[in-house]
Amino acid sequence: MSDKNIPYKTYLDETELPKAWYNLRADMKQKPAPLLNPGTLEPMKAEELSGVFCEELVRQELDDTTPYFEIPQEIRDFYKMYRPSPLVRAYCLEEKLQTPAKIYYKFEGNNTSGSHKLNSAIAQAYYAKKQGLKGVTTETGAGQWGTALSMACAYLGLDCKVYMVKVSYEQKPFRREVMRTYGASVTPSPSMETAVGRKILAEHPGTTGSLGCAISEAVEVATSTEGYRYVLGSVLNQVLLHQSVIGLESKIALDKYGVKPDIIIGCAGGGSNLGGLISPFMGEKLRGEADYRFIAVEPASCPSFTRGKFAYDFCDTGMVCPLAKMYTLGSGFIPAPNHAGGLRYHGMSSTLSQLYHDGLMEATSVKQTDVFQAAEYFARVEGILPAPESAHAIKVAIDEALACKESGEEKTILFGLTGTGYFDMVAYEKFHDGKMTDYSPTDEEINANLVKLPKVN
Amino acid sequence: MSDKNIPYKTYLDETELPKAWYNLRADMKQKPAPLLNPGTLEPMKAEELSGVFCEELVRQELDDTTPYFEIPQEIRDFYKMYRPSPLVRAYCLEEKLQTPAKIYYKFEGNNTSGSHKLNSAIAQAYYAKKQGLKGVTTETGAGQWGTALSMACAYLGLDCKVYMVKVSYEQKPFRREVMRTYGASVTPSPSMETAVGRKILAEHPGTTGSLGCAISEAVEVATSTEGYRYVLGSVLNQVLLHQSVIGLESKIALDKYGVKPDIIIGCAGGGSNLGGLISPFMGEKLRGEADYRFIAVEPASCPSFTRGKFAYDFCDTGMVCPLAKMYTLGSGFIPAPNHAGGLRYHGMSSTLSQLYHDGLMEATSVKQTDVFQAAEYFARVEGILPAPESAHAIKVAIDEALACKESGEEKTILFGLTGTGYFDMVAYEKFHDGKMTDYSPTDEEINANLVKLPKVN
Repeated sequence: MSDKNIPYKTYLDETELPKAWYNLRADMKQKPAPLLNPGTLEPMKAEELSGVFCEELVRQELDDTTPYFEIPQEIRDFYKMYRPSPLVRAYCLEEKLQTPAKIYYKFEGNNTSGSHKLNSAIAQAYYAKKQGLKGVTTETGAGQWGTALSMACAYLGLDCKVYMVKVSYEQKPFRREVMRTYGASVTPSPSMETAVGRKILAEHPGTTGSLGCAISEAVEVATSTEGYRYVLGSVLNQVLLHQSVIGLESKIALDKYGVKPDIIIGCAGGGSNLGGLISPFMGEKLRGEADYRFIAVEPASCPSFTRGKFAYDFCDTGMVCPLAKMYTLGSGFIPAPNHAGGLRYHGMSSTLSQLYHDGLMEATSVKQTDVFQAAEYFARVEGILPAPESAHAIKVAIDEALACKESGEEKTILFGLTGTGYFDMVAYEKFHDGKMTDYSPTDEEINANLVKLPKVN
Repeated sequence: MSDKNIPYKTYLDETELPKAWYNLRADMKQKPAPLLNPGTLEPMKAEELSGVFCEELVRQELDDTTPYFEIPQEIRDFYKMYRPSPLVRAYCLEEKLQTPAKIYYKFEGNNTSGSHKLNSAIAQAYYAKKQGLKGVTTETGAGQWGTALSMACAYLGLDCKVYMVKVSYEQKPFRREVMRTYGASVTPSPSMETAVGRKILAEHPGTTGSLGCAISEAVEVATSTEGYRYVLGSVLNQVLLHQSVIGLESKIALDKYGVKPDIIIGCAGGGSNLGGLISPFMGEKLRGEADYRFIAVEPASCPSFTRGKFAYDFCDTGMVCPLAKMYTLGSGFIPAPNHAGGLRYHGMSSTLSQLYHDGLMEATSVKQTDVFQAAEYFARVEGILPAPESAHAIKVAIDEALACKESGEEKTILFGLTGTGYFDMVAYEKFHDGKMTDYSPTDEEINANLVKLPKVN
């Protein structure tokens, strides 16, 4: 069906790797709304943020006018250990689907962290090291981000304290061991190590923890320990900046062949992968140089874009972090227990929220069993066992390719394959055994959280 | 320390990929001894083997004169989904060790099976399909081979029955789930499905199984079911032939830079990776065109090269398979229970055994805790979490690099990084917790098995 002039996999040469990250906000006419101080409701200033984040990252977080940030040589050297990631032409999938569509995916799973998270982890660890810090703290749920940060810190000789949601710590011992291999200390959260942890344990003995609680513990330790700062793997502007390397590499590779995607698809939890993948393409769209369809794919069980509200909300469940204007389900929203994998954040990147609000991007939600069906199909055809998160994008890419088969259109589809599912086999097992179920919150459940949104004009 | 003119990672273009496998035996003056029929002690004939293996594979198994076998286009297309594998210049490791040595490794772990096993799995499945068979059977211990075969069979629409050693089936549920994702049927062995399984279960109720038993079950099913054949992931000549793609790609990449390795290092269980990696280099040595040092690395707990005997022995514990002349610890040898990971086969590829016997290759054994220490060190420095098997080669590569530091020699070292350790975190956990121990069999234990070797000429 295909002429195969374009290789199955395109790896850029090291000399072709991006030398700067692209700051999408610089080209946005309608800038994302600023973070607000939860006490004063005034925009957060650099000095307020620098107690939590290291200085260069605060600068990146707040700068919405500089289009490019040079990637320091040390970070580029680290990138060379696992980048360029391949841009894959999915010939086998196209043939199996008998579609005239041309399908490409950017595969970010070929590193030990198993996902794209490493792109920002090394950047954040690098700036912490450069500032002379001793270490960083963070939280992790499923474990991809914690693993990535552990790897980056091991490389730079930086201390790394990870607060891992207790239920994950116990159910995903292998993720924990990978982090220990990289020398990180991994503490099940809530713990007795922090005031907030002790308070929660006193109030809720036997709790299995939540991401919100782990964030609170990590922030407490970072702000109360000399030489430490807190780092976060998604949602923030700085993270989208670092992740732009995904989209930049994709674009360089596609440009080589004169290929212009019609549709660009990514899964969306906090937005780190989607924001990174679409960045340079969205930049062209914002500057009026080209047009693309962008599709954010989220789980039906945690549908912030498709069923949430565009409003100021807390970034954490504990309501200690700044307020961000974003599509949110409310900071008290917790996905149903049957929800597998990541993409369980109640909110969404401010940048992506603004783009969606301005009609520059589409969003859709998909059911969990459909996602795993697509994941298994893809694994058998293309060989790669995808992470459940990534399989959200696969599901919609397949749907779009089948629509092309129906219409006879030869559209070009690009999607982000963010990672591998080697540590998600419990979810796959449930799927194989027919024990996986679907769940969408009712309107009442969603409204119950939305009515509690903070009142900010 | 290094000028970095050579990239961190070298990926060949698709057009540069090998179009033929190299058959090392063609250049050996002293050919590996033939397989013997266990009943008659006469060399096995093609017609005897073709009840077990499919015809083209029998031809490859017995041919020790044809230097090249063309790789069929369908297999090359499959290879393109995950090959070329990168040849990595270990700049970070060199710098950390402060060695003048130049270290390269060929990384075979970037595919879902997590190892080099896929190179032969797709070839064996392809010939089975081409012969019009319905399916194949095999055994798996740690699970790398079973996973690779499942992937190959899913791609070709071939049925795949895997007999998995019961203790692994229970302790490694995630490996099992990956195989199920690829549509394989996975049966804990011994099972009630076969005569030999029922016999063993009657004699040893509650047994947790062994590789020898799983082989017997897989062979019984293959030979008694219409349209099925048995396939094996190591030891055999055909497997070394397919795995030559590792060495061929390595050599093409090194030749580009005019780099000639001084030392080539690989871990050795049955010999599939080592044989594949060294093939084209050993060919040059055999033809007198170049010289290299080759080092086989085996675990101290299963030291077939370094402490075994070069003799005819059974390939399986159940003594139903042909006899092979090889370095062996005796078909009754079972590594100590504290042994982690693979490399637990009692014998060794006949081809490699002959080369070692003729002084063309060295061998050394390493202790388990040293191996995991090297694994963790490597993970932190080079980013990749290695399989325990691969870490045997890492350990000796580091030792050789440190010897260069001592002597000031700028040797070039190439080693095979066969796979990733994502499914081996139980062993890593033991190592982190200080619960991993070393074991070497006593001379008495080894002799107790060696005296039982079959009496052949």
